[in-house]
Amino acid sequence: MNDFVFYSPTKFVFGRDAEVNCGSLVKEFGGNRVLIHYGGGSVVRSGLLDRVKKSLDDSSVTWFELGGVHPNPLDDLVYTGIELCRKNNIDFILAVGGGSTIDSSKAIAAGVPYDGDFWDFYCGKAAPQQALPVGTVLTIAAAGSEGSGDSVITKKDTMAKRGASGECLRPKFSVMNPALTQTLPPYQTACGITDIMAHVFERYFTKTPDVETTDRLCEAVLLAMINEAPKVIADPNDYEARANIMWAGMVAHNNIVGSGRDQDWNSHGIEHELSALYDCAHGAGLAVIMPAWMTYVMPHGVMRFAQAAVRIWGCEMDFAHPERTAAAGIKAFRKFLASIGMPINFEQLGAKVEDIPKLVESFGIGDGKTGGFVSLGRDDIAAIYKIAAEATL
Amino acid sequence: MNDFVFYSPTKFVFGRDAEVNCGSLVKEFGGNRVLIHYGGGSVVRSGLLDRVKKSLDDSSVTWFELGGVHPNPLDDLVYTGIELCRKNNIDFILAVGGGSTIDSSKAIAAGVPYDGDFWDFYCGKAAPQQALPVGTVLTIAAAGSEGSGDSVITKKDTMAKRGASGECLRPKFSVMNPALTQTLPPYQTACGITDIMAHVFERYFTKTPDVETTDRLCEAVLLAMINEAPKVIADPNDYEARANIMWAGMVAHNNIVGSGRDQDWNSHGIEHELSALYDCAHGAGLAVIMPAWMTYVMPHGVMRFAQAAVRIWGCEMDFAHPERTAAAGIKAFRKFLASIGMPINFEQLGAKVEDIPKLVESFGIGDGKTGGFVSLGRDDIAAIYKIAAEATL
Repeated sequence: MNDFVFYSPTKFVFGRDAEVNCGSLVKEFGGNRVLIHYGGGSVVRSGLLDRVKKSLDDSSVTWFELGGVHPNPLDDLVYTGIELCRKNNIDFILAVGGGSTIDSSKAIAAGVPYDGDFWDFYCGKAAPQQALPVGTVLTIAAAGSEGSGDSVITKKDTMAKRGASGECLRPKFSVMNPALTQTLPPYQTACGITDIMAHVFERYFTKTPDVETTDRLCEAVLLAMINEAPKVIADPNDYEARANIMWAGMVAHNNIVGSGRDQDWNSHGIEHELSALYDCAHGAGLAVIMPAWMTYVMPHGVMRFAQAAVRIWGCEMDFAHPERTAAAGIKAFRKFLASIGMPINFEQLGAKVEDIPKLVESFGIGDGKTGGFVSLGRDDIAAIYKIAAEATL
Repeated sequence: MNDFVFYSPTKFVFGRDAEVNCGSLVKEFGGNRVLIHYGGGSVVRSGLLDRVKKSLDDSSVTWFELGGVHPNPLDDLVYTGIELCRKNNIDFILAVGGGSTIDSSKAIAAGVPYDGDFWDFYCGKAAPQQALPVGTVLTIAAAGSEGSGDSVITKKDTMAKRGASGECLRPKFSVMNPALTQTLPPYQTACGITDIMAHVFERYFTKTPDVETTDRLCEAVLLAMINEAPKVIADPNDYEARANIMWAGMVAHNNIVGSGRDQDWNSHGIEHELSALYDCAHGAGLAVIMPAWMTYVMPHGVMRFAQAAVRIWGCEMDFAHPERTAAAGIKAFRKFLASIGMPINFEQLGAKVEDIPKLVESFGIGDGKTGGFVSLGRDDIAAIYKIAAEATL
C-alpha cells in the first residue's frame, strides 16, 4: 500500500427534505453573502431553487444568483461568476445542481481570491491554494463532486476540457436528498451510474500490490450499483434505490476507496475529448470508452481483470485460461451498460470513426506517454478509440 | 435507508514514518501548548514518544506530558489530565497510543472547557458540546477511535464502563503508521481485529431495509479482515497486512459504512461488563460475546444472517433451510476467531458462569429493554451470557 493523506472534511446531510437545512449550514460554515449557482430547467421548475432561497432567507443570509451552467461547464460563466462575487463581496458559493454546477462553483470559488486567470488551475500553471467556501445541493448522483476536491471545466474557444484539484475545493457541506433525483429521465440516471462506476474502476485497476481493503471497498460500491441500477431504471421513483446510488456516488469519489493505491484516470481523459467534441453526456462517453480501455490494457494485468470478473460480475474462474475470465468480465460490464440504456460504440454515441485522429491530437500528449495502469502513447489512444468505435455486445 | 448526517473531518496521514508530521499537524490545527497523553511501555521503549516530542520541538510547539493510561482507561487519570491542562493553558491534546489513550484524551478534551464533572458526558447527564482539539498517533488497529467521535471510560470506584459521543470529539488529525503496530504481540493484534469486525457487525445487523450500499461496504471490510488477519498472525512484521487492517479499522468505525441504518450495539455493551469485571481485553470479550449474541438473535432475522454467511463466510445457501446457512455463518465466525487465537467461551476468557447474575445486574437495564436489532431484557442478556459461557467450536 502506498503512503497517503486522506482528508474529507465535508458535512453530508442526507435524506428527505434535506435542502431545508441550506440556510443554517451556510451560517455554520461562515457564509453571510451567498452566490447561488445553478443551471436552469428542472432546478427552477421543480421549485427547488425557491426552497433553497427560502431556507437562506429564513437564516437571514443575503443571496445573489447566477444560473445558466451548461452540462459541460464553460469558462465564460466562471469569469462572470468571479466578477459577480468580487463586485458583491460574496463569501460563500452554494451550488444547486449536479457535477457541472458544482465544478463551475468550485472554479468561481478558486478564481475569486486569485490574482491571475482562474484557467491557470486547469491548464496546470498553478494549483489552487485557497478558495471561497462552497456548499452543494446535489440533484444527480454521478460526478461525486459533492465530496471531492476536483473540478472539470471546458474552455469555450478551444473546447479543451481540463481538470483542477485541491483540498480547498472540497465542499464544506453537501445536501443530498435522493428524492431530488427522482425526476431525472432514465438516460441521465444511467449516465450518472456509469460515471460512478468509472470512478471506482479507475481506482480499482492498479499495479499497487497488497490493497485488499480498498479492493474490497471498490468491489462493494460496484456490486451495489449493479444491484440498484436496474431498479431505478425500471422505476425512477424508487427512493430507496436512488438513495443507495447517491451514497455510493459520494463514496466512489471522495477517495476513501482509492486511498493508498496508484490510480489510472486515462479513461476519463480519453472520454473528455468525446464530450468536448460532440457535447455528449460524460457518462455516455464513458460507457463507450471504459470497456474499450479495459479490453486494450487487460493483457497487461490479466489476474486483476480476472479478479474483477469473478468478484464483481460473478463470472466463474477459468483457472486454465484466466484471460478468458478477464474478458468475460469486460463483456459483462458492456452488457450491463447496454441494459441500462447506455451507448456502447461510436455510432450509438453519435461519434465518428474518422474523427479519431482529431481526438488523439486533442488529447494532447504529442509523442509523450500518459501514466497509469499501462502507459499509453498516441497510438495506444488511437487503438482504444478504434475498439470503442467498433464495439458490439 | 434512514436520513443521516455524516461528517468525518479528520485528516488521516497514513504510512511509513508518518509520525514525523506531528508538529506541523498540531500547528495546522491551531495547537501551541500540547498535552502528550500516552500509556507507557512500548510507546516509550520503542522511541516513538521521543520521535513525537522531537517533531513538536521542531515545530516550536510547547508540550507537557501525562502517561499511565490503563488499557480500560479510568476516570482518575482523566481528572488529573483536566487539571494539568487548565493549570498550563493547554490548547491541544495529542494522544499517542491505542483506543484507550485516545478515549482518555477525548475525555480530558471535553472536560477542560466544561464547568461540571466530565463524567456527566458518560453517565448520560450531558452531551459534550465543545472540547479541546485532539490529534492522535495510533499504535494499534482496533477501536477506530482515531476516526470516531466516541470515547469509553471506566469509573474506578464502581468499575462502570460507559461511553460518550459527540462531533466535537472527532480527532482533528490521526497519524497512522502501520509499522508502529508491528511490535504488537499476536494476542493483542487479534483482539484489535476482533474489535474491528465487531464494529462492522454491529452496523451490519439491522432491520433497516434497502441498505445495499452500506451492506456491501460492511461486507468489504469484513472480507478484507478475513484475508489479512491470518497473514499478520503468521508474520507480525507483515507491513502490508498491517496497513490493510489499519485502514479497515478506521473505515469500520468512522461510520461511512453505517450511515443511514439502525445499528445494534448491544454486544459492545454486554462485553463491557466482562472487561470491567475481569479487566480482560475488550476484543477478547467481544470474541466470546458476539457469536453468542448472534446465536441468540438469529431466529429474529434469519435471512440477514444467511446473507452474512453467504457473502462474508462463503457458505453455500441452503434454500430449503436458510436457518442452517445462518447458523453455519456464525460457526464460521467463531472458528475464525479461534484460529487467530481468540477465546471463544468464559473459561478461555477467565470469566465465571456464576458471575452471570452480577454481570446482568451491572448491565443496568433493570426491568427495561435495550433497543437494537432485537430488543433485549434482563433474561435475554442472561441467556446470551450463558451461550457465551458454554460455547464450543
